[in-house]
Amino acid sequence: MLIGLLGGTGTEGKGLALRFAASGAEVVIGSRSRERALAAADECNGRLGTRLIHGTTNEEMIAGTQTVFLTVPFEQAVAAVSAYHGSFRSGTILVDATVPVRFVDGLPTYAQPEAGSGAELVARHVPPGVSVVGAFKEIPAHVLAEVETPLDCDVLICGDSREARETVMAAASLIPSLRPLEAGPLRMASVIEHMTVLAIYLNRRYRRKGARFRVQGV
Amino acid sequence: MLIGLLGGTGTEGKGLALRFAASGAEVVIGSRSRERALAAADECNGRLGTRLIHGTTNEEMIAGTQTVFLTVPFEQAVAAVSAYHGSFRSGTILVDATVPVRFVDGLPTYAQPEAGSGAELVARHVPPGVSVVGAFKEIPAHVLAEVETPLDCDVLICGDSREARETVMAAASLIPSLRPLEAGPLRMASVIEHMTVLAIYLNRRYRRKGARFRVQGV
Repeated sequence: MLIGLLGGTGTEGKGLALRFAASGAEVVIGSRSRERALAAADECNGRLGTRLIHGTTNEEMIAGTQTVFLTVPFEQAVAAVSAYHGSFRSGTILVDATVPVRFVDGLPTYAQPEAGSGAELVARHVPPGVSVVGAFKEIPAHVLAEVETPLDCDVLICGDSREARETVMAAASLIPSLRPLEAGPLRMASVIEHMTVLAIYLNRRYRRKGARFRVQGV
Repeated sequence: MLIGLLGGTGTEGKGLALRFAASGAEVVIGSRSRERALAAADECNGRLGTRLIHGTTNEEMIAGTQTVFLTVPFEQAVAAVSAYHGSFRSGTILVDATVPVRFVDGLPTYAQPEAGSGAELVARHVPPGVSVVGAFKEIPAHVLAEVETPLDCDVLICGDSREARETVMAAASLIPSLRPLEAGPLRMASVIEHMTVLAIYLNRRYRRKGARFRVQGV
């Protein structure tokens, strides 16, 4: 399994790199800057004592990876996808992990795009032949990056292509203590993105950083 | 603790009646029909072997109860609250457990009211002096009614009055294996109502009936 991270030098990207590499997957951190990508890869490899994490430009990462996680902040998601439009190959899976949240009067609030959800907005900007899957949206980046902490939670995975969903489910299932749940077509992303708003609220309310969800009874 | 149920003869109402009475609270099931309320109370008392559950008209229940759960289907919520407008006393807490969901192409979909959420819509229709709290929205009625099954989940409680929220948190904490989490002002209800959509989806997808949520890390 080879995992690419588009804009992967932030907390979300490094968190996924650590989790996937700790599970034995090979990871390519992409960045606008090759140097920053290499530095992030070195940092993550150092933490794990592996050499499974590589760093390169976003272009090179996209050209060589079939499963690409979009790990920029939501505000940069459309620009990031559009900037590398020409680099995507047909058949690439773009896993959107971004969430449109803003603070209104100090309260985290879902900033619903006109497309219905962040994932659906991103899907409007990918080249034909690229499937968008929403995943890892409701797991705080901070807890992903705490690679010693078992996740003990579920990850909700939605998308319009069944094959693409199943590839991402298989990738997620590599991570111990994380259970992938199939959450339907891409328009269910709005539901999952709302859960992120709740996680942010609960983290602030209860002064924690790792609020995440386990579905009981399933 | 005395719990009233407005329109409490359905699965949601009976489920809450069973859970609260099994925890030692006194419950009044209200209905448009005194006979149906009495029959539902008898049925629930019979299942528990208690006499803690009573039945009467919605008017009498509202007049005698400070904490009233709204347990009709969402489509009837505004009409139910409006119909008993004159019966509410100032200081009553109305706990909205309804969720606006409809099916679109076979997929459960959040039917967002213009007010922002079902709870905020209900709040527009209560008399002055009545506080609306959103709670028990994301726990399937079916699993509430299976009173032998430990809930092993959280219940998210939101509302604009801190005192009202805390009263409902205290009520919820009577139920074993249920953890109340404070989820902010009433406009957070939209987030919680979205979770119900996910629970419905997962129940259908995984052929279960009791999908519910546990927040990890809090």
